[in-house]
Amino acid sequence: MYNAKAYSVASSTSPFAPATIARRDLNEHDVRIEILFCGICHSDLHQARNEWSGLMPTVYPCVPGHEIVGRVTKVGPAVTKFKPGDLAAVGCMVDSDGTCPECRAGLEQFCPNFTLTYNFPDKYTGGVTYGGYSDSIVVTEHFVLSVPSNLDLAGAAPLLCAGITTYSPMRHWGVAKGSKVGVVGLGGLGHMAVKFGHAFGAHVVVFTGSPGKKDDAFRLGADEVVISRNAGEMQKHAGSFDFILDAVAAEHDINAYINMLRRDGNITMVGAPEQPLPVSVFGLLFRRRSFSGSIIGGIAETQEMLDFCSRHNIVSDVEVIPIQKVNEAYERLARSDVKYRFSIDMASLKSE
Amino acid sequence: MYNAKAYSVASSTSPFAPATIARRDLNEHDVRIEILFCGICHSDLHQARNEWSGLMPTVYPCVPGHEIVGRVTKVGPAVTKFKPGDLAAVGCMVDSDGTCPECRAGLEQFCPNFTLTYNFPDKYTGGVTYGGYSDSIVVTEHFVLSVPSNLDLAGAAPLLCAGITTYSPMRHWGVAKGSKVGVVGLGGLGHMAVKFGHAFGAHVVVFTGSPGKKDDAFRLGADEVVISRNAGEMQKHAGSFDFILDAVAAEHDINAYINMLRRDGNITMVGAPEQPLPVSVFGLLFRRRSFSGSIIGGIAETQEMLDFCSRHNIVSDVEVIPIQKVNEAYERLARSDVKYRFSIDMASLKSE
Repeated sequence: MYNAKAYSVASSTSPFAPATIARRDLNEHDVRIEILFCGICHSDLHQARNEWSGLMPTVYPCVPGHEIVGRVTKVGPAVTKFKPGDLAAVGCMVDSDGTCPECRAGLEQFCPNFTLTYNFPDKYTGGVTYGGYSDSIVVTEHFVLSVPSNLDLAGAAPLLCAGITTYSPMRHWGVAKGSKVGVVGLGGLGHMAVKFGHAFGAHVVVFTGSPGKKDDAFRLGADEVVISRNAGEMQKHAGSFDFILDAVAAEHDINAYINMLRRDGNITMVGAPEQPLPVSVFGLLFRRRSFSGSIIGGIAETQEMLDFCSRHNIVSDVEVIPIQKVNEAYERLARSDVKYRFSIDMASLKSE
Repeated sequence: MYNAKAYSVASSTSPFAPATIARRDLNEHDVRIEILFCGICHSDLHQARNEWSGLMPTVYPCVPGHEIVGRVTKVGPAVTKFKPGDLAAVGCMVDSDGTCPECRAGLEQFCPNFTLTYNFPDKYTGGVTYGGYSDSIVVTEHFVLSVPSNLDLAGAAPLLCAGITTYSPMRHWGVAKGSKVGVVGLGGLGHMAVKFGHAFGAHVVVFTGSPGKKDDAFRLGADEVVISRNAGEMQKHAGSFDFILDAVAAEHDINAYINMLRRDGNITMVGAPEQPLPVSVFGLLFRRRSFSGSIIGGIAETQEMLDFCSRHNIVSDVEVIPIQKVNEAYERLARSDVKYRFSIDMASLKSE
């Protein structure tokens, strides 16, 4: 074990403060990464504040962060894909059983025995896993991604969660050149969906409640922007979408969007409203529409996504902050005041 | 125009009574069919009683019936598929525009300009269409199906709605040998889904609230029967189904069934609860599950289903009644007291 620098919270109401955490020494298949940037995901905030206490109660101290980009510093003797000096990344998972049908299908995100990057039982330390708000991390090779060298590293970090979370369902439901794609909510996830939809050659329509986001939506690659409270604008698109990605975690009228789908169209939720959403079955029946959910993506698909981003020069739009501003960033994130993701420059942790 | 005998209701609260209706003379592509049997669908009851007044208000007098089997008596000069004496059937649609993308895809059920078999504007008569509670009907050739001669005609009639409504989504979502399939609700639709699932080679599990239906479910082809209020029995099947067909039109907890689906599993509603169903998004996210709806099927698929039924000797379980008992049958249908479909023997109409 060795000591790593980190920022942690001590309780659901504590601010982040500097901390020292134990990381494991390298095992045969392990890769040790010096963390350069770590994105701040909305899940980090929910977990730090124990807002998912029913589903995944938070164990304190908690070190969040699952949008990790860095440089390999050491590798175990059996590692073949990485060598010191390589750019590398870690997303939401750091392990899985590797043997179940989900793992064999390359869909580790559905493995019943996966290990999440933070706040999850850690079979090596006996405690919980600690995430990327830290100067380094040790992860088994299979869960380490290669970062193409042409990507801006600060902007690449959020690809590991916001990126794959939007890329995966768009691919799964067949978004391609000529598709008509809707994106509901222009935040950390939504703005990535716009970039991907545009890069796939789809006609991208952004639905937002904020007229102020219109120009930005076009800049990100939207072909049209609809203000969701404008019933007339909404009506114009009824029955016309192949796919809609819904990134809104707050309660909202999902039926308005289901009715936007054409025959066999799908709407996928990547946000998770706490309360059940009332779904009108008639809206599903008449065009054989479907309503589904998706979480992140498998490791192979995450690498595919990073390589796609490299070819299309896609990264997240980020506001880079030093770790010392993480508490302020959380306050701003809670009011959606960020365009579109915070990325922590971990060099700032060296001064602690 | 010629006069046909029928049974109609004069208002939402009137009983059925004998009536005379006008049917069109044969056009070039028309087929005239002497109706031998007509199934009673729950939709007939909703429509006769104007219970869908918001969606499709009933025009009186109303002659329901869209599960029609009979014998061709006359054909127009351009008809090529049928000749007098042939067994023929008509389902929920009698026309569509034939030119839209849905029609070109063989999915007439999604044509924005289809004509339903009853209570729909009739472009020939200027009134509304009249359904199968009648001695004859005239339908354009494309919407007339061939009935394989080995099928029992009384039991074949419900295939035209209950049959195709369950066959189509099972095919669409890939039910095949080795699939694990759930059927929620063992009524007119559900009992057909059990027969089809069994014939497809799937492992079929019936969910029912009525322990009394257990033996019948096994007789129809179920491999297992789960009493839905038994939490322990339900839990045993969590996360294990490829596909669930939900035929319950009453309000019920859809999340209990969504949680039964494995990764990428789908649950399709063919019943239409009046009120929106609250859907927990977490249940959809974690296994990339989908929740969808389906209505009937296209004409080509309906013929495919009839031919499949012929090869597997599948018909609906019916209770055959004379038309004079239709009011009593509606009372029983309203309390789900039928195993599993009423089929009206139209010979009884000759005595009126």
